[in-house]
This record gives sequence, C-alpha cells and structure tokens, in this order.
Amino acid sequence: MTSKISGATKIFGIIADPIQHVQTPQAFNDLLLTRGVDGVLVPLHISKDDFAACIDGLRRVRNLGGLIVTVPHKVRMIGMCDEVTERARRIEAVNVVRREDDGRLVADMLDGEGFVSGLRLGGIEPAGKRIYLAGAGGAANAIAFALAEARVSHLTVANRTTSKAQELCARIREYHPDLRVDVGTNVPYGHDLLVNATSLGLRTSDPLPFDVSRLAPSSIVAEIIMKPAETPLMAVARSKGCLVHPGLPMLQSQIALLADFLKVGQ
Amino acid sequence: MTSKISGATKIFGIIADPIQHVQTPQAFNDLLLTRGVDGVLVPLHISKDDFAACIDGLRRVRNLGGLIVTVPHKVRMIGMCDEVTERARRIEAVNVVRREDDGRLVADMLDGEGFVSGLRLGGIEPAGKRIYLAGAGGAANAIAFALAEARVSHLTVANRTTSKAQELCARIREYHPDLRVDVGTNVPYGHDLLVNATSLGLRTSDPLPFDVSRLAPSSIVAEIIMKPAETPLMAVARSKGCLVHPGLPMLQSQIALLADFLKVGQ
Repeated sequence: MTSKISGATKIFGIIADPIQHVQTPQAFNDLLLTRGVDGVLVPLHISKDDFAACIDGLRRVRNLGGLIVTVPHKVRMIGMCDEVTERARRIEAVNVVRREDDGRLVADMLDGEGFVSGLRLGGIEPAGKRIYLAGAGGAANAIAFALAEARVSHLTVANRTTSKAQELCARIREYHPDLRVDVGTNVPYGHDLLVNATSLGLRTSDPLPFDVSRLAPSSIVAEIIMKPAETPLMAVARSKGCLVHPGLPMLQSQIALLADFLKVGQ
Repeated sequence: MTSKISGATKIFGIIADPIQHVQTPQAFNDLLLTRGVDGVLVPLHISKDDFAACIDGLRRVRNLGGLIVTVPHKVRMIGMCDEVTERARRIEAVNVVRREDDGRLVADMLDGEGFVSGLRLGGIEPAGKRIYLAGAGGAANAIAFALAEARVSHLTVANRTTSKAQELCARIREYHPDLRVDVGTNVPYGHDLLVNATSLGLRTSDPLPFDVSRLAPSSIVAEIIMKPAETPLMAVARSKGCLVHPGLPMLQSQIALLADFLKVGQ
C-alpha cells in the first residue's frame, strides 16, 4: 500500500541496475504508511554510465528526501556525497543517502546492521560464534564489519578471487586487531554460522556459494538472497538438518534503520 | 489510490515550482489504477536554475515513462526535447513529454485540448461562439489555438501587457487566417463565452481577471483555476445569472489525453 500521492508528497528513490527484482519499495512504503508519513519510495533504474548525471539531477529535486542505493552503485555513490559516516568509510560503500534541505547528500551503510539485526530477530546471536563468510563484495564487506562489531569469536572470509578476501581481512584487522580473521577456502569446516554474502543463488543456474559436503547439522546457514525466498543453498542445508536463516529478515530489519536514517517519521 | 509499487513499476513525474498545489498526481494515479497500469506519477519540485541538470538526469532514468510539465517549465522544456508536435511548436510550449525506450524525449501540448474537451463534457460547445480570452501566457496560448481549431466564430484576446496579446493574435492569424481575431480591453462586451486563462484567482488577494460590470446573464464564464474550486470570478458571474464552468474539468479531461500520449494502458 501507498498513501495518496499529492503535490506535497516527499519522494524517495531506490537506485539499482537491474531494478525489477528489488523488494524495498513494497516494504518501505508499508512502513511510511504505518508511520503516517506523506512520502513514497519509487524504483529508479540507473546504469553505471548514467550514474553521475542522474545523481547530479536527482539531488536538485527539492522534494527528494533521499536515496536507497543498491547494486551496482554502492561504491561509486561515495564520490557523490558531501558527508559519509565513519562506518561507511571503513566499508568503502554506502547504501543510503539522505538529502538535506540545502541539497547536501549525507550517506551511511546499513547493510551489515540490517543483517545482524535480522539474525537476532530470527533468534540467532552472532556474539561468540565462529563465522564463515562467503563473498568479499559490497554486501560481504558490510556484513563482515557488522559481525566484527557484534563480537564474533572468529571470522573466515572466502572468495573466488582470493585477493579480495585478503584485502577485506586486512581491513577488518586494522579496525578490530583482537579479532581472529582468516582467509578461507571453498570448503568450510568448524564454523557455527555460515553466511552466503555472494550473489550466487539469484539465478537457478548458479553453483552453490561454497562446498556443502562437510556441512554439519549443528551449523546455521544464513542467506542474504531474498529472491528466490528458498535458494538451493538453503534447501541443501535444510536437508542436512541445519538451522536455516533466509534473506528476507535482513531487508525487513533494515527498512526501519533506513527510514530512521532518512528521518521519516521516527 | 496508488497500486502497489514494486521494482517493475514505471515512473512518471510532474515537474513544477512551486509543486505543493498540483492536483495531477491524485487524478493520474487513479486513472493508472483504473487502467490496470503498473505505474506511478510523483511530484518533482524543480526550480528554473536546476531545470537543465534535472531533466538531463531524469531522462537517463530507464524506467521513467515520461514527465508532465507545468509552471514555470512549459516553454523551456521545448529546448530539451528531441521531437515536438506541430501543435506544441505553434504554441511554443509543451505540457507532456514521453520518454521513449531509447531515451528520446517526445513532447506535446494538451492544455488547450483538455480545456475544450472539459467544456464539452460540461455541455458547452465552443464552435460558432464569440470568445473572450483573458491572458496571453502559456495556458492562454494553448487554449486560444484549441478554440481556433474548434471553429469558434470570433476570438478576442485581452492581456495586461498588450504586446503579448498582439503577439498571440498574430500567431493565431498565421495558422487560422479565416478566423476573426482581435486584441481586447479589460472590459469584455458582446461575447458568448468568457475564459479566464490568467493566474488571477489563485490568491484571495488577486483582482478579478477582467471587468465584470457589463457581464450579461446570457454569457458563459469559464475558469482554468482549479484551486480554489470557486474563484471570486465564478462567484460574481453566478450572482449575475451566468452559466459558470469551473477549472477542474480541464484537468479531468486532460488526464486521459496525457495518459494516452504517455502510452499507458490505452
């Protein structure tokens, strides 16, 4: 549901390429309605090549309240912002930009906090756990830092391009020198919580994000992919007796964080 | 009402400055819902200074279906378009821009057709009537040409700045050499239909758009102002026994014309 749009309605956009699969408008507009805010979030399909000109145009729209930023724009958006939180600087990516009344763009990165908050809503406390994280891209970066903040006992990062995993591990160690951080392989072993933070699973033809042959029934498997709601990784983890945490709670938890940052009806 | 917005929703914008008073989003979104179109029209508050950069950014948004253009951007929008209809060229203003899939902007001017179509819905046929038109701005230009097309018998144009009325009359004569077209004064006399196409009446402190002292009960008075729904001109015309045609039907008639031009669910 969306409240009645009038000339006084504040506009929010979610920018992505592709855009069709995003599920944020439905959840965010429901929240705006619940909070009684006269605003609306619309999808904006923006390609890499048009990114700078689009953002330059959008920031001049005076009733624009802000933008939610997703793939593939999370890193390049930093360069368009006037102010970026310390957290987003560490991760080197942003996923939300507030437009101040004077046109200044202020950005933060809430993907990791959304993921951890979603885990907790699902009854899973990451503190003290040994974590295996598949992926070293934007989402993996945000989740790795949020898990480090959440005081996990051990973090293993595995990525097809190993150098990206090494680079992420080095950056986490810089800010969390006491945390044990390792680069892992495709075959996880000895972890309490395994997280897929790659895009593998979006398409039915994708391989699994990691080797599941040694997956123990005591392990928890968490997914960040929202569509399909049940990925092949989740299915195989269930078949092995693992507790499975789907991707959708990350979005649901994050919606409130995004709305708070965008200063809509707190 | 607005249909549920998802990642697949097509976006339309109405650009104006100021924006708060526009009533098109409500009517247009109702029509999209009626036609079963997955689209949404949102207000975009864009100032003159930011116009070029905003349009340059918006035209790159791939799921933008088009823009409805209103004050003060109707004239300058022509310069941003790749294709402009013959009608809009004559009027030298546009009020709707369709974004083709390849990013080309194609524009038309439907204000006049919306007004004439609204008159007819109200049971008033302009053909053969002697018309007094107050105003020579964008709306007046569009209405003057549409009335000329509708084969009125005589058109008088009156404007505070007389040179603008003269210029409009000359332009109409160029395309309609057989129509009697005159520049009028502030005191209309001997007309069947008097049209306010100025912005006078938007504010309660505005003077009447023309002198009503010689207004005959047989005259019809038509308004283009939508808010307030009853302008001082309409009230005084009613008190003199005139048939009064309000501003809202022009919008209502035009919504369908705009949606057809934007190729949404015909």
